Amino acid sequence: MKCRRCSAAAVVEVRRHNAAYCKDCFVHVFRGQVERAIDRWDMLRRDDRILVAVSGGKDSLALWDVLLRLGYRADGLYLGLGIGSYSDRSARVTEAFAAERGATLVVVDLAETYGYDIPTAGRKGSRSTCAVCGLSKRYVFNRAALDGGYDVVATGHNLDDEAATLLGNTLRWQTEYIARQSPVLPEKDGMVKKVKPLFRLSELETAAYAFLRGIDYVVEECPLVGGNTQLRYKDAMNAIEARSPGTKAQFLFGYLDRGAPLFRTADEPALAPCASCGQPTTGRFCAFCRARAQVLGERLEPARTATDAGDDRQVAEELADEVLPAELYGAEAH
Amino acid sequence: MKCRRCSAAAVVEVRRHNAAYCKDCFVHVFRGQVERAIDRWDMLRRDDRILVAVSGGKDSLALWDVLLRLGYRADGLYLGLGIGSYSDRSARVTEAFAAERGATLVVVDLAETYGYDIPTAGRKGSRSTCAVCGLSKRYVFNRAALDGGYDVVATGHNLDDEAATLLGNTLRWQTEYIARQSPVLPEKDGMVKKVKPLFRLSELETAAYAFLRGIDYVVEECPLVGGNTQLRYKDAMNAIEARSPGTKAQFLFGYLDRGAPLFRTADEPALAPCASCGQPTTGRFCAFCRARAQVLGERLEPARTATDAGDDRQVAEELADEVLPAELYGAEAH
Repeated sequence: MKCRRCSAAAVVEVRRHNAAYCKDCFVHVFRGQVERAIDRWDMLRRDDRILVAVSGGKDSLALWDVLLRLGYRADGLYLGLGIGSYSDRSARVTEAFAAERGATLVVVDLAETYGYDIPTAGRKGSRSTCAVCGLSKRYVFNRAALDGGYDVVATGHNLDDEAATLLGNTLRWQTEYIARQSPVLPEKDGMVKKVKPLFRLSELETAAYAFLRGIDYVVEECPLVGGNTQLRYKDAMNAIEARSPGTKAQFLFGYLDRGAPLFRTADEPALAPCASCGQPTTGRFCAFCRARAQVLGERLEPARTATDAGDDRQVAEELADEVLPAELYGAEAH
Repeated sequence: MKCRRCSAAAVVEVRRHNAAYCKDCFVHVFRGQVERAIDRWDMLRRDDRILVAVSGGKDSLALWDVLLRLGYRADGLYLGLGIGSYSDRSARVTEAFAAERGATLVVVDLAETYGYDIPTAGRKGSRSTCAVCGLSKRYVFNRAALDGGYDVVATGHNLDDEAATLLGNTLRWQTEYIARQSPVLPEKDGMVKKVKPLFRLSELETAAYAFLRGIDYVVEECPLVGGNTQLRYKDAMNAIEARSPGTKAQFLFGYLDRGAPLFRTADEPALAPCASCGQPTTGRFCAFCRARAQVLGERLEPARTATDAGDDRQVAEELADEVLPAELYGAEAH
């Protein structure tokens, strides 16, 4: 096969585009897709301070690499989840990546800062491990961005992640989750803007990019991910994609183009500060504080007089749950 | 395993209901599901004249059997597709079924009445075999029902068919097709009412019902069905269902419950008589007449002065294409 752009020997095939590329042209095309996503969706301004959520996996490191190459002011955020040697290796890989590039890496350790790690939370809480992990990540990403004065959080969700999430939400017709699925979630009431600049690129493409760029990343899957429903949806999408290349992209882009307008709802729930931590929530206490209190066996106490009339028993749907809890985990972990 | 209803030895397991039944109770429960569908969706009135589209497969014969048992005035319609020994056997099985029950069977032969058979149409026309077959079936079902003075056409689409169709349409976000997917399509402008009383029952359940009722049906798949995209969607749904029993039902019923209202559009296209055959269409000539003329190598001529200002070149979206063309075929053929 020859490269579509320069006719040199190709090293990467992109079946859904019926195209193949040599190393240099693939890297060029990959970055072009990221730029296109950023421009089309107004994801980033040139002077934005960007916090890239990096896990040590191929997607988030590829994203950070591209953003730095494109000249963005992108710092990394590594969240230590406490998942044994898997987390140790993820931290080392991420730190090495930052050091090589002279980039700034913010590190938050879940156990140090919030008193629990993910294996403990999975055992003790009522949520699945993946659910409490996803919740913790979303919370810490937002809080770290606010604390650090960042304008936007960028995550490494790729096409496969987004298509699998959309499939999962659609199979259940969870219309509120579907409605919130977007490559951009604007800033709102204490929720920092979130963007997914890799959403047009498949898992295979992000892996190829990381490999071709010589990025050392953690290849193995999170050891706790077994049975993750997100992986089932990926398997199902992959089976269809294998026989009908382009289905994933058609599904996700078709949704954004024609589906999303139908799901848009007029009445978004109002957000108010959590009575414990002050982060935005639709209830009295946010989902993170409730989950954390459960894991730590503590009783939730207001940090100050709550102005919010929310009911303690109310199982509020948090805006923090902008997608199925499994998503972020699935996206970051492999 | 024991029967959920009577504790006798069970012969059929329904995993998504976490239940098993003996023969008699399964037949009872199966019919109950059909009755529930009919009642909930106002599918049939007691005095309706019903035309059941029968292919010789398990679904359509099970449907006919249930409707007769429930005391409905249900005649059968068999459409000869001319697919060699497959069609011959389908015809024999269907005729035997009708004769055993003293039921009325209307037979239409595509080649005799319309001048082509499906293998020829698949070779000569621009549509895929499955597409032209589905189109032909929808057309003939409607026309035969009108000619025979029937109130409603009933088809054997089961839960697997409907879920696979919905998945296919959703993966492409074909919002107009999605919007039209319903267990009931009301009568409109020369389109006879269509109902799918088996939509709550899985393929496995219709097969079990046919088997337990001693119905002789054609087990083999249509020999032309290879590569049918509908089958891929069924495979994908089955892979997910195997690990999460109930997903298919959740997907289809969730759509009907929460999704459908979002897709409902105000502006349905107006139907007018086809300038050639008089059947309802959104264009000047209906999709069936255009496909047929192409297969026969004829030029379409108005049968009378067309009052319709439609453009000859317009590739109109026919209301006859109420679902992806593959659907009816998939549903009837296996």
